[in-house]
Amino acid sequence: MAGKLVYWFEEGGEEHRAILGGKGAGLAEMTRIGLPVPPGFTITTQACKLYYQSDRKLPDSLKQDIKDYIKGLEQKTGKHFGGDQNPLLVSVRSGAPISMPGMMDTILNLGLNDRSVKGLYEATQDLRFSYDCYRRFIQMFGNVVLGIPHSEFERVFSQLKKDEGVTQDQDVSAQGLKSLVASYKRIIRQKAGIEFPDDPYDQLFMAVSAVFDSWNNERAIIYRNINKISHDLGTAVNVQTMVFGNMGADSGTGVMFTRDPSTGERVLYGEYLMNAQGEDVVAGLRTPRPILEIDEDLPGMLEQLKKVARLLEDHYKDMQDIEFTIERGKLYILQTRAGKRTAQAALEIARALVQEGQISKETAVMRISPEEVSRLLHRAIDPKAIAEAVCQGLPASPGAATGKVVFDTAKAEILGEQGEKIILVRPETTPDDMPGIVHAQGILTSRGGMTCHAAIVARGMGKPAVVGCDALRIDLEGNKATIAGREINEGDVISIDGSTGNVYFGQVPLVEPIMGGAFKEVLGWADEVRRLGVKANADTPEDARRAREFGAEGIGLCRTEHMFMGHDRMAAVQQMILADTEEDRRKALDVLLPMQEADFYDILKAMRGYPVTIRLLDPPLHEFLPNVEELMKTLSEMKAKGAPKSEISHVEDLLRKAKALQEMNPMLGMRGCRLGIVYPEIYEMQARAIFQATARLIKEGISDVYPEVMIPLVGAAKELEILRERVEQVAGQVKQEQGVDFPVVIGTMIEIPRACLTADEIAAHAQFFSFGTNDLTQTTFGYSRDDAEAKFLHKYLGEKILKDNPFAVLDQKGVGKLVETAVKLGRGIRPDLVIGICGEHGGEPSSIEFFHKAGLDYVSCSPYRVPVARLAAAQAALRSRQA
Amino acid sequence: MAGKLVYWFEEGGEEHRAILGGKGAGLAEMTRIGLPVPPGFTITTQACKLYYQSDRKLPDSLKQDIKDYIKGLEQKTGKHFGGDQNPLLVSVRSGAPISMPGMMDTILNLGLNDRSVKGLYEATQDLRFSYDCYRRFIQMFGNVVLGIPHSEFERVFSQLKKDEGVTQDQDVSAQGLKSLVASYKRIIRQKAGIEFPDDPYDQLFMAVSAVFDSWNNERAIIYRNINKISHDLGTAVNVQTMVFGNMGADSGTGVMFTRDPSTGERVLYGEYLMNAQGEDVVAGLRTPRPILEIDEDLPGMLEQLKKVARLLEDHYKDMQDIEFTIERGKLYILQTRAGKRTAQAALEIARALVQEGQISKETAVMRISPEEVSRLLHRAIDPKAIAEAVCQGLPASPGAATGKVVFDTAKAEILGEQGEKIILVRPETTPDDMPGIVHAQGILTSRGGMTCHAAIVARGMGKPAVVGCDALRIDLEGNKATIAGREINEGDVISIDGSTGNVYFGQVPLVEPIMGGAFKEVLGWADEVRRLGVKANADTPEDARRAREFGAEGIGLCRTEHMFMGHDRMAAVQQMILADTEEDRRKALDVLLPMQEADFYDILKAMRGYPVTIRLLDPPLHEFLPNVEELMKTLSEMKAKGAPKSEISHVEDLLRKAKALQEMNPMLGMRGCRLGIVYPEIYEMQARAIFQATARLIKEGISDVYPEVMIPLVGAAKELEILRERVEQVAGQVKQEQGVDFPVVIGTMIEIPRACLTADEIAAHAQFFSFGTNDLTQTTFGYSRDDAEAKFLHKYLGEKILKDNPFAVLDQKGVGKLVETAVKLGRGIRPDLVIGICGEHGGEPSSIEFFHKAGLDYVSCSPYRVPVARLAAAQAALRSRQA
Repeated sequence: MAGKLVYWFEEGGEEHRAILGGKGAGLAEMTRIGLPVPPGFTITTQACKLYYQSDRKLPDSLKQDIKDYIKGLEQKTGKHFGGDQNPLLVSVRSGAPISMPGMMDTILNLGLNDRSVKGLYEATQDLRFSYDCYRRFIQMFGNVVLGIPHSEFERVFSQLKKDEGVTQDQDVSAQGLKSLVASYKRIIRQKAGIEFPDDPYDQLFMAVSAVFDSWNNERAIIYRNINKISHDLGTAVNVQTMVFGNMGADSGTGVMFTRDPSTGERVLYGEYLMNAQGEDVVAGLRTPRPILEIDEDLPGMLEQLKKVARLLEDHYKDMQDIEFTIERGKLYILQTRAGKRTAQAALEIARALVQEGQISKETAVMRISPEEVSRLLHRAIDPKAIAEAVCQGLPASPGAATGKVVFDTAKAEILGEQGEKIILVRPETTPDDMPGIVHAQGILTSRGGMTCHAAIVARGMGKPAVVGCDALRIDLEGNKATIAGREINEGDVISIDGSTGNVYFGQVPLVEPIMGGAFKEVLGWADEVRRLGVKANADTPEDARRAREFGAEGIGLCRTEHMFMGHDRMAAVQQMILADTEEDRRKALDVLLPMQEADFYDILKAMRGYPVTIRLLDPPLHEFLPNVEELMKTLSEMKAKGAPKSEISHVEDLLRKAKALQEMNPMLGMRGCRLGIVYPEIYEMQARAIFQATARLIKEGISDVYPEVMIPLVGAAKELEILRERVEQVAGQVKQEQGVDFPVVIGTMIEIPRACLTADEIAAHAQFFSFGTNDLTQTTFGYSRDDAEAKFLHKYLGEKILKDNPFAVLDQKGVGKLVETAVKLGRGIRPDLVIGICGEHGGEPSSIEFFHKAGLDYVSCSPYRVPVARLAAAQAALRSRQA
Repeated sequence: MAGKLVYWFEEGGEEHRAILGGKGAGLAEMTRIGLPVPPGFTITTQACKLYYQSDRKLPDSLKQDIKDYIKGLEQKTGKHFGGDQNPLLVSVRSGAPISMPGMMDTILNLGLNDRSVKGLYEATQDLRFSYDCYRRFIQMFGNVVLGIPHSEFERVFSQLKKDEGVTQDQDVSAQGLKSLVASYKRIIRQKAGIEFPDDPYDQLFMAVSAVFDSWNNERAIIYRNINKISHDLGTAVNVQTMVFGNMGADSGTGVMFTRDPSTGERVLYGEYLMNAQGEDVVAGLRTPRPILEIDEDLPGMLEQLKKVARLLEDHYKDMQDIEFTIERGKLYILQTRAGKRTAQAALEIARALVQEGQISKETAVMRISPEEVSRLLHRAIDPKAIAEAVCQGLPASPGAATGKVVFDTAKAEILGEQGEKIILVRPETTPDDMPGIVHAQGILTSRGGMTCHAAIVARGMGKPAVVGCDALRIDLEGNKATIAGREINEGDVISIDGSTGNVYFGQVPLVEPIMGGAFKEVLGWADEVRRLGVKANADTPEDARRAREFGAEGIGLCRTEHMFMGHDRMAAVQQMILADTEEDRRKALDVLLPMQEADFYDILKAMRGYPVTIRLLDPPLHEFLPNVEELMKTLSEMKAKGAPKSEISHVEDLLRKAKALQEMNPMLGMRGCRLGIVYPEIYEMQARAIFQATARLIKEGISDVYPEVMIPLVGAAKELEILRERVEQVAGQVKQEQGVDFPVVIGTMIEIPRACLTADEIAAHAQFFSFGTNDLTQTTFGYSRDDAEAKFLHKYLGEKILKDNPFAVLDQKGVGKLVETAVKLGRGIRPDLVIGICGEHGGEPSSIEFFHKAGLDYVSCSPYRVPVARLAAAQAALRSRQA
């Protein structure tokens, strides 16, 4: 048999959380530091296990223990359990080691029966109060312990009010409440088939058993499954002497925060109600008063509360959320816990606690959730605003926005340019919607997942987006939509919150982003402890500048395909693609060269002092041509209209080329380094543009630029060997032509499984690896991201076939194993190999922690995720230091 | 310094192959067993290494050794090196441990100079012969040692013949040849800048150095790179006393095989020429005579040759190819090696040698190349036929065919049905070409790789195919083609050999496939030693029967999608796809159920006694619909023609559905078990069909049927868990409905990287794994097979970026590593997990060896590859036993 199964509050503390549960440990801790906690004891999680081992029965020895502790409690309080004089009433509360909504919570006033209710009356001289306590107890007991629905009791209560001609509970007479007790007992007899237990010990044993049983109720099991909490922990039970805030004008109850939870300011914050119980506050029938005014009701109480607040904050070294009750002028503390706060307050409090010498910088860093930081970078719904969401989609890109609904991209562009604030509402977005997205305050779509086009583009631009909002039905032809049965027309104002996925009708007040001193300071501390570098994915000088502001230490991924898409370049790019010979292709590339050089010149300059990793052309060439279907449509229209033969033949020409480039599975086709191998002149042009830009900068005296050439989609070492040689050759030529020297750094993206599996061979030719986890996830799972999200991923997530969307959260079991393999093989050959990651996962905290553990050197993410990554990287470092 | 660097032939043997080279070891071996080998010695590969260590110089000590051995040779032969009486002439030949074309081969008659040529004349009394030897030697020396092109010498020789008014070499006078010697020496002086070395030792040292140098000539290095031969081995040099077959009527030369190389019959086979040297035979100026008639020229010689043949065959325990020379009536053996033979002969000889007690069954099994076995299953070009290929494509499907060229599939079908033998010639084939392929003798395409549509279909049907024939230019509109500048019109007869890739103009004689007793017996021995099971991929009862004939032990992959494609089923299948509700879908499936049941009934019956692994539906649904482009075309044509509105709207409907199902990358999209998860009713129907067929068979008394249900494309354990449960449920229902019991076996294909990486979790729900290495190769490399072969794989193979086409030969480094991981993880959880492979690689010998080593239980391949796989599996087992 196990050892000690019951503990006085005086005997425990935080260190016993595993056996006392969170609530029990808190009560013990407060008792230990001398706070006025109503006396009580905790039945441990060990006892819970024993209960289950004993076939859901309380062993006699445990019953005896409990009896002994009740006796002890009687001695401590001078009260009598079930006594007709000064009766001892207790609360019974569950408390698991990890906080778990969904379990039984609380039974109050246990110990009342027909005898002790008289004792209560005698002690309080308040008949109504006494029977009100009694009937409340029977209802709670009936519901929680015996499983009788509340409605059974409330029906009778309603009838009573009707009979007495009153509408409010508090207006019911004492006699009425007394009759109610009898009715309630009848209900218990009828519904549960037992007599309401008179013996207070029976009441207690049944309540304790009910708490233990609730550990395995359905909601609790589901909650544990979802949150991966072990089913073996068990719950503790806290038995505590009742105190009453409703015993008259010198009694009351309240809640206080040790600091302002909105701003973090060090000022007592909270509310109280005199002659009331907690449930009265919740019911909202009376308006609570600000805590700072409590001395008006109970002079001197504010000082007491401040003392408690200081004591608890100093003890827990964090802002506390404290529940208290005052019984006949005496203050009791019933609960304390870390207080919920806004992101802004979290940063301010963390900084203040460090300044006050309460916590270390490391602790401060651990206190901030990375997602909170992300929210700070964007406008938010005013926390003080009362707004009810009408529906919820996926929180695809953080920040809140409000504006007029527009369904048409062209219209969005026009209105946006006129200075209208608009929300672009589309079934989904495509690259064609870019002008509309640029001019919108925010984007709302009815389809798509966390990594759909709209989501990725919006995140990159730091623009709020809610996607995959199932409840939204869009009728593009009718230029309208419905949400929850309500029609929305063009021009109607809505608001969206991309941090929560919420959608609101009308305008909701927003607050501007605040990146104050605390933000900078705490992130600075994060920088001190993190091992991982943090870079940004940026393709333009503007992005590069923003990334620097957010603390990026370089560009980890500069894509070059966007540079091919500018309207001024499309003609040359298409000419290059349509070229039948290498010579024609080179001519077209000669036109592109100075443009590319200018691109690289600007971006290298904007990132001076830091490395800029430039990925050579990656997408399949047909992405730069109109698609086949479009061309076919145009053609048939032209033919129908009887267009001139020469025009038709031109389109036919384009169509033929587009068809020739068409692929069954372009994701797995002629792209990445395969392009570079088959058309060497494309990569040669790009390499030349990079090195000429570098040479120009050096000649202009800007020598601290560090371009790095990244070859995409390598799957065989030989690919990299060949392309590396060609790039080096170009570098050599440029050095000679320009008469300047610069280091040449060449590496590769690791983004297909075979690259991971043969990373040792590849590392022989690479100065760095950068994991392209987007593509690596696609090939490891055999999922095409676009197709998966449209067709089955939603179902997979809904049915928990996959825990997370692997395109948002790195799949550590599969993809992660390949990452680890590649790191091991690569470093085995080349210990100084620099290894980073530049997929979407580079900005996701749990993935960042994995990359830290896997020994990567840096993560690279979109500029708006850089602060998130800095913090997550620091937390990863601190956590592994602890482990 | 190294030890002994030179060996007498008498001192060595096969066991010294590493230092004596192949040729030296053979000469030593023959000397050792008492055959009349002209005496000589071998300078070892160690000496070669020393030569390179000494900066490409022969160390003095080595020179001294060589001198000593020449002295010894003088004693053995009674001849004098460079002597003017009875001079010692030697041949100098290279000989590496592994046979290597591309290295220096032979210098004959070394030792001749102005003095010793007189001695030769004195010994032979043949002036013309002596100077002919001399001028041949100088030319060979000049060419091989000094690098002077043959043409330099031949120009002068031609002039001489002109001057003497003769056309044939042998008609040139002795005096003419004498003058030629002087001219040749002048050429050497002019071209090499040195005097022709008179000193025979100088000649010898230069020749030996030249042999050593040839180890590192360009061709040799390339050859070693391609064949993965170490560059460190070095070559040996053989110095051997010359013998002459051209010393008169009692001299001669010949080649003999110890058995008939075409049939394997035990009869001496070969040819000889009297008064001739080897090069005369090669030159083809005189017709050699059959070896069995040699007694007519030299009575008693046949008996001597037979004795040698028997001795060598008994010694090497294999059919030998022997070169001999007769000098003045005395027989000398110059070389023996394993004789090349036809596949048929290989089997017959192997069986005969076992019957004769010469070799073990295991050795017999090792002697046959698996690809040879494959050839036996198909018609072949008659080995006796003289036919010159006009071009060569890829040998895509073995066997030879001859017929009239047809470019049009419809026409091929018509002519084929009329009994015409035709060859279907297409740029490439698609599923639309199936009727033409069915009716053709063979297929020839100008595009495509070893795994293109034509190749796969043809292999499956056992029909010859040559694909990717670059030299073939097809003009479909003109209904003609050209090869090598020659036009081919419809109806012209061509022949193709799918085993070699050769294409011939006109009809070439073919021989029918022979699977005689030797075939069956040797494969039976293979079955005795192999550990791997061999199953077949078969979707029809006919395929199943053929597979059994070829020795398959079950069906490892029965695809069900082909069953959905029959014309009688298309309507129901499309109805199922177009269904908007589950109910409509179930209605369509109800129509399909009895058809599927009949399919499974037939195939299970045909394979009774063996397991049949049935893969549930795998391809994306849009594969069963007309494609979008086609529908768009139809639609625009209908509109142009003013078709009735209702018809147009029907096609529009189809188009809408097809578009909705369209995917960016169908390979990575909604297919495999993802279909089964999203549309449970499809897999339910299939499972029901399988189990109802099983129940029916059992009720009919055929209880030895073993269906196994295979879930495709699993990437997360949960997928399999869910689908397994559903299939089991259906099985339970059918058992109850039908009142019979049968075991339910459920497993999965392992065909995406994540399945390999999480194979432990997946194995918890699988009774078997079957590697789908086709898809696994696609995802591991990130290659779409169709796109890769069309766009870049050809270039990758050409430039040796990849050694082999990974879709033909398993990529052991990448894909293989995943296979090993999956085996380890899977068996770790479930030691009795049955593991097979059913991709194309299951019939490829080097891949089979890998699967053997990886511990798989079976391979499954197309029926025609089953014998290949049986043999390859046996050889893998024997090789690992040896290792």
